[in-house]
Amino acid sequence: MREPILLTPGPLTTTLKTKTAMLSDWGSWDAAFNELTASVCADLLAIAHAQEDHVCVPLQGSGTFAVEAAIGTLLPRTGKLLVLVNGAYGKRMARAVEVMGRQVAILEFAENAPVDAAAVARRLAQEPAITHVGVIHCETSTGVLNPLADIARVVAAQGKRLIIDAMSSFGALDIDARELQFDALVASSNKCLEGVPGMGIIIARRAALVESLGNSHSLSMDLHDQYVYMQKTGQWRFTPPTHVVAALRAALDQYHAEGGQPGRLARYQANYQMLVTGLARLGLTPFLARDDQAPIIVTFHAPEHPDYDFRALYEAVRERGFVLYPGKLTEVETFRVGCIGAINEAEIGQAVAAIGEGLNQLGWL
Amino acid sequence: MREPILLTPGPLTTTLKTKTAMLSDWGSWDAAFNELTASVCADLLAIAHAQEDHVCVPLQGSGTFAVEAAIGTLLPRTGKLLVLVNGAYGKRMARAVEVMGRQVAILEFAENAPVDAAAVARRLAQEPAITHVGVIHCETSTGVLNPLADIARVVAAQGKRLIIDAMSSFGALDIDARELQFDALVASSNKCLEGVPGMGIIIARRAALVESLGNSHSLSMDLHDQYVYMQKTGQWRFTPPTHVVAALRAALDQYHAEGGQPGRLARYQANYQMLVTGLARLGLTPFLARDDQAPIIVTFHAPEHPDYDFRALYEAVRERGFVLYPGKLTEVETFRVGCIGAINEAEIGQAVAAIGEGLNQLGWL
Repeated sequence: MREPILLTPGPLTTTLKTKTAMLSDWGSWDAAFNELTASVCADLLAIAHAQEDHVCVPLQGSGTFAVEAAIGTLLPRTGKLLVLVNGAYGKRMARAVEVMGRQVAILEFAENAPVDAAAVARRLAQEPAITHVGVIHCETSTGVLNPLADIARVVAAQGKRLIIDAMSSFGALDIDARELQFDALVASSNKCLEGVPGMGIIIARRAALVESLGNSHSLSMDLHDQYVYMQKTGQWRFTPPTHVVAALRAALDQYHAEGGQPGRLARYQANYQMLVTGLARLGLTPFLARDDQAPIIVTFHAPEHPDYDFRALYEAVRERGFVLYPGKLTEVETFRVGCIGAINEAEIGQAVAAIGEGLNQLGWL
Repeated sequence: MREPILLTPGPLTTTLKTKTAMLSDWGSWDAAFNELTASVCADLLAIAHAQEDHVCVPLQGSGTFAVEAAIGTLLPRTGKLLVLVNGAYGKRMARAVEVMGRQVAILEFAENAPVDAAAVARRLAQEPAITHVGVIHCETSTGVLNPLADIARVVAAQGKRLIIDAMSSFGALDIDARELQFDALVASSNKCLEGVPGMGIIIARRAALVESLGNSHSLSMDLHDQYVYMQKTGQWRFTPPTHVVAALRAALDQYHAEGGQPGRLARYQANYQMLVTGLARLGLTPFLARDDQAPIIVTFHAPEHPDYDFRALYEAVRERGFVLYPGKLTEVETFRVGCIGAINEAEIGQAVAAIGEGLNQLGWL
């Protein structure tokens, strides 16, 4: 039996080439590993077109660790972060700020619509204590795409700093630091870059990072320390996830070979198109309006059947070789399907067929 | 050319069997991965004989993240941690407590000698504000073994709680929760368990963890949250390093096949013996007295030659296929050699020969 294909927002299906890059052990003090880290960081900076004013700081742990580290390091102790919330990841960002004991304000939007930049501008004008704004680029809880350029423009216009959680968009959607002002862009190894999970990525504005000494609430998550140490030694401050870094190097080579961001996006868009068209034939419709949707992960309304239960659908599709993702909405019954990972229209076509067969078996078609 | 063998305190050389366990992708929401996590945690608890009163909480990130998380979660905001320092990792533990803004006291010992339990008892008697004690079991900066049983006894006798950093000893040295009182024992995937780096392990006393709600200074490092979520769902709270967990499962299978802790220790002791005997023939002597030394990592005095430079020795031995580790002492010129990882006397013998050839080439013999 083939291993199941992960139609999730990550961890996702990676290529065998990426995984076989983990068949070596690396000394974390060795020059060869320092070169690996440096080359990965250089590529990540280039993907964001951020070589001029930014630096790349990798961090051990999951994406949430990296988001918390970016805020903990770049938001001064006396600062105040306005978090733009239209889903679970925005809520999580706000919660991280609360736990670290800093000031946080929340501007909440409906879960089925993008953040409204004009509303952000109004809130910033009303509440001058706000120093920073935090936003989720693609809210994985629904798949909604927030208008990053518009938001960055109003934040910059009012002299505030922007922290972007680009976890599920980085690498696939265009984010250009030459056109977009931000203090931090946070991503991870295991989403659209198609590496394996275990490290976060922070693209930080150099000037902001340099002046962040002493801000962090956490030794492990102090990006200023991590950056200064890495500049001095070429090494990670604490034990790096060496195999994860090596896998990301291999994944980046394949990313470039695919044509970088435009190539990656084209494949995901084709996956998305195939998925939505295929599931429409089964009577399954997306939760979001087409224009608000990123081609990353799609939330579908659950089949309208009184016996519907996600667990049963999951198992029926799992038996056929595909792993779905549960919905994350509290008021509407939904499930999610990822378009990302080392898959193309062939696998999406098979997945659509598997979902159809599963629904048929359950009598919900 | 064979890949270099890592004679370091981790990341270290792992078996191909452990690394090939990373050739699958796992869904973090999938039952198969939940079972993987549960089986790893059950084994880790059993290694510490801690099934009765303790629970195992895994954490994303390096070992330092896990140490910080254990303290941040288990030391109340009004608590005070006495850190027993005889090397760099003790200092790092104290620094983590400072950064998180809690009260810390330091009891410092010479770097070339174990912690003195009687001195700990005296300090605890003098400073009743201390609620918790933190100790490094095997201080990797020199390789000194601290007397855990004696320390645990005096800490318990005065009604204080113990947090043990057993990063470089867990799995090889006997730590038995039935005989030793502690609130947390912190370890990692990539030391004596011979997994790959990327996750920390916290064996926490259940009653202490349950009452730790709200202590943590960090959302990502809140072990109470991680535990409660895992109890409820079987899942990690945030994206787990799935491949690292799978590698640890494979490494644990090999650990059991080797005879568990006694088998692992016997191999490391043989490695240690071979290393010290071999390097003695080259005129290289250990920094520590024999009785104070764990068979984990050995600090050697540098060759007594006016031109000595670690970098040159490192390169000469690296060319011959072995990766040494630099010394971490400020006043004495030293280098370190690890006895741990998927190596035995054969590789240690080869390493001794390589060091001899390297020294000969450099004219330092």
